[in-house]
Amino acid sequence: MITTIAFDADDTLWHTERIFITTKEKYTALLGDFADKDFIEQHLDATETNNIKHFGYGIKGFTLSMIETACELTEGRITGDKIKEIIGFAKEMLAAPIEVLEGVRETIEELSKNYRLLVITKGDLLDQETKLAQSGLGDYFDGFEIVPRKDAKIYKYVMRRHALSAEEFLMVGNSLKSDILPVLEAGAQAVFVPYETEWFHEKVTDEELEGKNFGRIETMRELPEWLKSKV
Amino acid sequence: MITTIAFDADDTLWHTERIFITTKEKYTALLGDFADKDFIEQHLDATETNNIKHFGYGIKGFTLSMIETACELTEGRITGDKIKEIIGFAKEMLAAPIEVLEGVRETIEELSKNYRLLVITKGDLLDQETKLAQSGLGDYFDGFEIVPRKDAKIYKYVMRRHALSAEEFLMVGNSLKSDILPVLEAGAQAVFVPYETEWFHEKVTDEELEGKNFGRIETMRELPEWLKSKV
Repeated sequence: MITTIAFDADDTLWHTERIFITTKEKYTALLGDFADKDFIEQHLDATETNNIKHFGYGIKGFTLSMIETACELTEGRITGDKIKEIIGFAKEMLAAPIEVLEGVRETIEELSKNYRLLVITKGDLLDQETKLAQSGLGDYFDGFEIVPRKDAKIYKYVMRRHALSAEEFLMVGNSLKSDILPVLEAGAQAVFVPYETEWFHEKVTDEELEGKNFGRIETMRELPEWLKSKV
Repeated sequence: MITTIAFDADDTLWHTERIFITTKEKYTALLGDFADKDFIEQHLDATETNNIKHFGYGIKGFTLSMIETACELTEGRITGDKIKEIIGFAKEMLAAPIEVLEGVRETIEELSKNYRLLVITKGDLLDQETKLAQSGLGDYFDGFEIVPRKDAKIYKYVMRRHALSAEEFLMVGNSLKSDILPVLEAGAQAVFVPYETEWFHEKVTDEELEGKNFGRIETMRELPEWLKSKV
């Protein structure tokens, strides 16, 4: 009997990846004199992957990777003005208004009448708190957990903290690696809602999914129906 | 009767500011052909202050401010190689080993026998968790709270979360603005341990301190003695 539904935030409740994609387009245009789009994107992805151990995830680290890539691709010939434009991209991204995903607001509002709702997300507490406030969804949630990782141990910790048994806990998110597999490992249930683009850092193999039992829906609108089917 | 002592982390338990100072020295040397040290530092401080609303605190935001300042000071003539060096500074800063402040380890160890110890700090959860682990102090603490702000409301929330009355709570830190004044406002006690340099974002006026009653010690070593004097 599920009593509590926890949601991932970025690209589950609101758009995050979209703004990175838009920024990458501006970035490849900015460097268009030096290399073609695909080459720039490949180089940026490689720099980003390599820099995650230094910078973690997020807009500021992504921006440092854009700058580093620009220096390398242009063999140091990038101008200060273009670098300043890249820093401007970061400020725009950080200031961008939160766009709640289609169908999320109505679904969350409906579910909040019958379930305890939580947010469980990685990232910076201040950033995520600001996003939750801007989304206008804050009042529907009974708890907001910023976690350093998403593994089975962390999910167990969150359940313990909220005095929940695994049987009554459901996690909903767009990442198989972070929102689904570790939750199943912790003995609870999970529903996968894919985002329009998959994040290349979060891929999982078919083997990892074999024999795993979790829900799959196309949009958040289908979640109440899925819950009814479980009763 | 104090039962619980909470500590700020950066520049209270371990050095943080020092690494920013060392990096600023390298940075002004790197730009030495374009402007003199004082001028560069003033410009960087101004950029940093202006960017806090975008980037918050921390190494990545500081690095973006260094890059922005470099572009401006050189009127765009900064080379890509120098920008890459600045990004290298960020990686070094992020990888720098934690240096626990003089006297902290022994004091924390001693106090942990008779008091419940907490860390209350701003910043990124993952960064701070890593620093606590690296410091080797983790086992002495009963709780680790990452907070988005340090105001009276937050301190009250932390006390409530740990089922503490204000009478039994003491906060120790190097910032009058963040570690002392809001704790007094929340009805608890506080001890100020100044760091070797004062952070220009955290200055308070004499008026704000007027009539405020809190402890002042020169180094953490004096804390057990201060506690005895209160009994």
